[in-house]
Amino acid sequence: MKIAIAGLGNVGAATLKLLCENAALLRARAGQDLAVTAVSARDKSKPRACDASGIDWAEDPCDLAARADVDTVVEAIGGAEGISYDLALAALRGGKHFVTANKALIAAHGVELALAAEQAGVRLSFEAAVCGAVPVLKALREGLAANHVSSLRGILNGTCNYILTRMEEEGADFDTVLADAQRQGYAEADPSDDIDGFDTANKLAILTAVAFGRAPDLDAVFVEGIRSLTVGDLREAAARGGRIKLLGVATRGADGEVVQRVQPVFVPLDEPLARVGGVLNALEIVSNCAGETLIEGRGAGNPTASAIVADLVDIARGPRFYAFGVPAGTL
Amino acid sequence: MKIAIAGLGNVGAATLKLLCENAALLRARAGQDLAVTAVSARDKSKPRACDASGIDWAEDPCDLAARADVDTVVEAIGGAEGISYDLALAALRGGKHFVTANKALIAAHGVELALAAEQAGVRLSFEAAVCGAVPVLKALREGLAANHVSSLRGILNGTCNYILTRMEEEGADFDTVLADAQRQGYAEADPSDDIDGFDTANKLAILTAVAFGRAPDLDAVFVEGIRSLTVGDLREAAARGGRIKLLGVATRGADGEVVQRVQPVFVPLDEPLARVGGVLNALEIVSNCAGETLIEGRGAGNPTASAIVADLVDIARGPRFYAFGVPAGTL
Repeated sequence: MKIAIAGLGNVGAATLKLLCENAALLRARAGQDLAVTAVSARDKSKPRACDASGIDWAEDPCDLAARADVDTVVEAIGGAEGISYDLALAALRGGKHFVTANKALIAAHGVELALAAEQAGVRLSFEAAVCGAVPVLKALREGLAANHVSSLRGILNGTCNYILTRMEEEGADFDTVLADAQRQGYAEADPSDDIDGFDTANKLAILTAVAFGRAPDLDAVFVEGIRSLTVGDLREAAARGGRIKLLGVATRGADGEVVQRVQPVFVPLDEPLARVGGVLNALEIVSNCAGETLIEGRGAGNPTASAIVADLVDIARGPRFYAFGVPAGTL
Repeated sequence: MKIAIAGLGNVGAATLKLLCENAALLRARAGQDLAVTAVSARDKSKPRACDASGIDWAEDPCDLAARADVDTVVEAIGGAEGISYDLALAALRGGKHFVTANKALIAAHGVELALAAEQAGVRLSFEAAVCGAVPVLKALREGLAANHVSSLRGILNGTCNYILTRMEEEGADFDTVLADAQRQGYAEADPSDDIDGFDTANKLAILTAVAFGRAPDLDAVFVEGIRSLTVGDLREAAARGGRIKLLGVATRGADGEVVQRVQPVFVPLDEPLARVGGVLNALEIVSNCAGETLIEGRGAGNPTASAIVADLVDIARGPRFYAFGVPAGTL
C-alpha cells in the first residue's frame, strides 16, 4: 500500500510516526506493508515529531492525487472548503482511497465524496473525524448494523469537557480556565469552533448520518456552546446531584424525524456520561436490539492518528479477513 | 445471502426474529437480502419466539453444511466439542461462512477453524462470543489495529455481575441471590460455568488472542470464580471505597509474555468498571497510541443476536464499503 500524507501538523506527523513505529505490527495485521511514498506540508523546514526524510515531497498537496506511486491519500490539513475539498475530490475521482480526520469536510461534503468513492470503487474513510481513537463510526456502521438506532448522546469535544471539568473541580471561572487551557495546548488560540459547539455539531451531523442512514445535515443541528456557563451553574448542578456536560444529542421521534441538538445538558451522576471527565470523549447509543452501548476514550492528538491508521489497515486488508486479527498460520 | 441456523434456543430464535423484523434495514446496509433458507433444532414442535414456518427443516444440523442453498451457517447450539465442532469444520471446509456465539468452541478450536476458513476463502466470525452486542472484538481487531495493546480488563459475565450487584445492594448472601437469579432466568440451572469463572475464561482467552495476536490458550488462564465471596467481603470493599467485580484480566509484561487471570478484583469507585452494574458487560483496553478505551453494553440474549446479525451483514457486504453505512445514492 502506497500512502501519501497531505499536511504534517500534529495529526499528519503523528500518523507518519505511528506508521513507522508500528510497521511490523501493521504489516502482520494488514497483510502488506503500509509505506508512505509522498508527503506535502506548507513549511518543509519546520521541525517535526516524525522523520520525513527519504520521502518524496510535493509542493502542492493536490499533486498527491495524481501520482502513480500513491494509492491512498491521507488528508490532515483541515477545513471544509479549499485545498481539503479539492484534494478529496481529485483523489477519489482519480481512483485513490481517501482517509481523513476532517469533520468539517465530511459534514459539509460527505455525500458527494461518498458518491465519488463508490463510483471509483475506492474507500472514503473518516473514523478519525469523530471521537479520535474510539471506533464509534465503526460500531454504528458495522457492530450495531443489525439495529435500528433510536438515540445518540455524546461528549464529542475534549476541549469543552476539559474546561467544564476544571471549572467544576477548581471553582475557577470560564475565562480563567480557557486561558490556561490555551497556554497548555488543550484549546486553540481561536477557541470558537470548540467552545461555541460547532466542532461538536460537525461530529454529531456525521454520527447522525451513519446511525440513521441519512445525509449529514449541519444546518439542522441546534447549536449552543459553553461560553455563558458560570461556576454557579455547575455548583447548582452538583447540588442537584449531577454535572453539566456539553452533549451532542440526536433522537429519532415516532414520526421518523431525527432531532439534533448540541447544548449544555444536566447529566445525573448515576448516568455513565456524568463521570466522563477531562479531555475524554464518549458516545452512548440506544438501539432496538442491543439496548444501550457506551464507548469511551481519547479523542484528540495521537488517538486521531490511531484512527487514521486503523482506516488504512482496513483498506489494506481489502477482502482478506483474519478472525484473530492476523493470519491464522502466524498464531 | 442464504443463511442456515443450527439451533433455535434463545440465541438462534432471537437471530431468526431479528433477521425478519429488521429485514429492510439489513438489506439497505448489506446491499443484498439476508434470507434464512434452512434451520435445524432438536424439537420441531416446541413453541418459539420466531416463526420458522416456510423455512426448510434439517433433522441433522451437519446436513446444513452440505446444502447448495446455504452459503452461511449460523451455529447456536453451544459446546466446545461434538455437533458444534463437527458442523463448524464441515461448513468451513465446504466453503461456507461460519458465524457463532460459541465461546467454548472458539477458545478450544479457534485456530484450526480460522485456518480452515482462510484455506476455503470464507469467514469465521464470532463477535457474539464475547460481550454480546458490544463490538469488542471488532474494536480490537480493526478499530485499534494501529496499536500495541498492553492490557485488557473486562466484566465479561453478566450472571456474575448481576449476582455481585444484588449482593452488594441488598446485603443478601450468595446462595440466596443465585437461587433468585436462577428463578428469573439470569442464571442457568447448572450455574458452574458462569459463577466458577469458566465462561469468563473462555471469553478472556478469545480477547487475548485477538488483542495480542496469538492462539487462544485456555489452559494458561488462572481461574477463580465468585462462589466463596460473602456479603462481608463486599462490605469491606465498600468501606475501602470500591467494589468487588469478577474481572478477566490480560496483561503483557516487559518480556512480551501475556498473563491471563479471571478472579474477583477490588475496583476503586473512581474507575469506570466499578459502576458497571447488573447484567452489563464492559471491556477496558489500554494501548500504546489510543490510551484507554472503554466499551460497555449488554452481553446476553437479544444482544447476542444483534452481534450475530452484525457479523452476517459484514459478510454480506463483502468488498462493498458504504462510508455512511448505506449506499451514498440512498442518503
